[in-house]
Amino acid sequence: MTITTRLTKHFGIKHPIVLAPMTPASGGALASAVAAAGGLGLLGGGYVDRVWFEAESAKVTRSDVGAGFITWTIPEDPGLLDIALERHPRAMMLSFSDPGLYAARIKKAGVPLICQVHCLDHAFRAVDVGADVIVAQGTEAGGHGWALRSTMPFVPSVVDALAARAPDVLVLAAGGIADGRGLAASLMLGADGVLMGTRFWATQEALIPDAAKTMVLEATGDETIRTSVYDVVRRRVWPPGYTGRLMRNDFIERWQGHEKELAQVRGEELRKVEEAQNSDDFEIANVTVGESIGLIHDIPKAGDLIHRIVAEASNRLMKFAPALAA
Amino acid sequence: MTITTRLTKHFGIKHPIVLAPMTPASGGALASAVAAAGGLGLLGGGYVDRVWFEAESAKVTRSDVGAGFITWTIPEDPGLLDIALERHPRAMMLSFSDPGLYAARIKKAGVPLICQVHCLDHAFRAVDVGADVIVAQGTEAGGHGWALRSTMPFVPSVVDALAARAPDVLVLAAGGIADGRGLAASLMLGADGVLMGTRFWATQEALIPDAAKTMVLEATGDETIRTSVYDVVRRRVWPPGYTGRLMRNDFIERWQGHEKELAQVRGEELRKVEEAQNSDDFEIANVTVGESIGLIHDIPKAGDLIHRIVAEASNRLMKFAPALAA
Ligand SMILES: Cc1cc2nc3c(=O)[nH]c(=O)nc-3n(C[C@H](O)[C@H](O)[C@H](O)COP(=O)(O)O)c2cc1C
Ligand SMILES: Cc1cc2nc3c(=O)[nH]c(=O)nc-3n(C[C@H](O)[C@H](O)[C@H](O)COP(=O)(O)O)c2cc1C
Repeated sequence: MTITTRLTKHFGIKHPIVLAPMTPASGGALASAVAAAGGLGLLGGGYVDRVWFEAESAKVTRSDVGAGFITWTIPEDPGLLDIALERHPRAMMLSFSDPGLYAARIKKAGVPLICQVHCLDHAFRAVDVGADVIVAQGTEAGGHGWALRSTMPFVPSVVDALAARAPDVLVLAAGGIADGRGLAASLMLGADGVLMGTRFWATQEALIPDAAKTMVLEATGDETIRTSVYDVVRRRVWPPGYTGRLMRNDFIERWQGHEKELAQVRGEELRKVEEAQNSDDFEIANVTVGESIGLIHDIPKAGDLIHRIVAEASNRLMKFAPALAA
Repeated sequence: MTITTRLTKHFGIKHPIVLAPMTPASGGALASAVAAAGGLGLLGGGYVDRVWFEAESAKVTRSDVGAGFITWTIPEDPGLLDIALERHPRAMMLSFSDPGLYAARIKKAGVPLICQVHCLDHAFRAVDVGADVIVAQGTEAGGHGWALRSTMPFVPSVVDALAARAPDVLVLAAGGIADGRGLAASLMLGADGVLMGTRFWATQEALIPDAAKTMVLEATGDETIRTSVYDVVRRRVWPPGYTGRLMRNDFIERWQGHEKELAQVRGEELRKVEEAQNSDDFEIANVTVGESIGLIHDIPKAGDLIHRIVAEASNRLMKFAPALAA
């Protein structure tokens, strides 16, 4: 069963499902598995760590994989983008802050440009610099973003804005989508496909400790929160407005609202966080997932997951048609 | 064209669309118009103002209209709930804080109980006290609520939780739904229908100044914000966690984050807000709408709107079926 959209045609893929370039979950194995199953796999470029990127890039088994970067970190090692463009040219995704500085380089390399956006002005800017695909991310998403918009009303707003201004630019829904229901709903909203992070985070190929994956199978979507405390402790200076959605835990409970104080004892607290990471203590170490964690109850292989999601979405998409046609 | 769901069957209505009992938009004319068009109309009970309620109740033209209350305000005039149960027994909706105190009275009157919830524990509590319908409200919604969950992932979470615990209880999606795309998407998520506020706020029958309606036709969904400043100025002591989503304006810009200071000059600021209301100055007076305002471009009659939404949703729901069936 396949669902054909502008996205599947544009990229010559089988299913309108894109893997978010998650740091550090989306390594070579996960990106390759998603591509092998007929989705679009994007390798995470994350905080621009060349050692990590080279190692994971080498694990990519296919030529039809793309990559994605946290835009404001690219200047720390600008050559990495060139390596990514050469080795993983299926698509390049830029998230979080202005894509203008790098868009021309990507377009010149003949690589499709995907931009993740959090408000309409972001979308217009992305179109202006040549984006081929816009990812409309809602605040329910795991990882970083803005708290301004939610997926349900944001996606059709972006669809309408682009229909008037740049009708050939595709739109992906991101944030809170973890199963065939979410895929089907996104298509009803007018999206050409979905970009999923949290659901792929909980697959066998994701580069996440098993203990973290197992722990959150019990969690509900009520248990996540947007915060900056881990950015403060790791001295990651995100542009204004950005926070990350994570599982609530003791560390966040302690420091949320006390970020200035935290900055003063940063070194000590960072040691604790790193120790906690090594000992799977997720009351101190962060577990980065979105609200859709409440819809996730197993750790499948990424390929099996894609087939399951497409089958469920197809079922939903056929559900009302017979009665309506009658 | 009609879309049949458990909701339409349960209430013997034609379309799976419910009018939110908005304060003060949902008066007798709007509730009646929605019912006449085949939806479920709920008269607003709001902050329990008997003069207002009697007047609007008298304007209801049909016996198949229900009503809804802001639960924590009921003790201010408990008799009003009895009047509502007697005159508008199609359904009674309780929103915002524990429905336990009033559920038994509603059930004993043989009136279907609808509870609006913002997290899974709310949903379980509502089921325990006998709710027939749960409204799963996301943070993108206009008016009051919690900021915890967004509609896209929250609705299927509630659907799954109830499937396991109370499979006969119906689920409505609320928050960010303003057109046929949102209705179709909600049905894909497993909802039995939708409850809409903002979209009905912008209809001819809504008890909202024309100047406010006209103004927001230009607005995008990026321009709303959650705040408590108008509750502070009006001395409405909402239970912990509740804020309201409104259009951003100068008043919010001035006082957001300075609520203590505002409380000290409350009387004076309230006068300004009331004056502004009388002169349609919406930089000072509040305009209560949600993110879906960006999807709204006209002020139709409520009945025409319902038919348009159902036609658009039906189109969407039939879109993918032929290719999938082939
Ligand atoms: C663990 C995790 C790490 C993420 N890291 C990145 C990243 O490095 N770059 C990026 O563009 N987006 C990142 N995201 C956000 C995703 O691109 C996407 O917007 C989000 O996962 C969609 O919402 P969902 O998690 O509900 O599927 C991350 C998300 C998660 C859950
Ligand atoms: C102007 C306005 C007033 C509202 N007043 C109430 C109210 O008095 N009681 C209530 O239960 N909900 C109220 N709500 C919230 C609605 O019940 C509903 O959750 C919300 O409108 C759904 O999101 P939407 O605005 O995106 O359609 C109000 C909403 C708006 C926009």
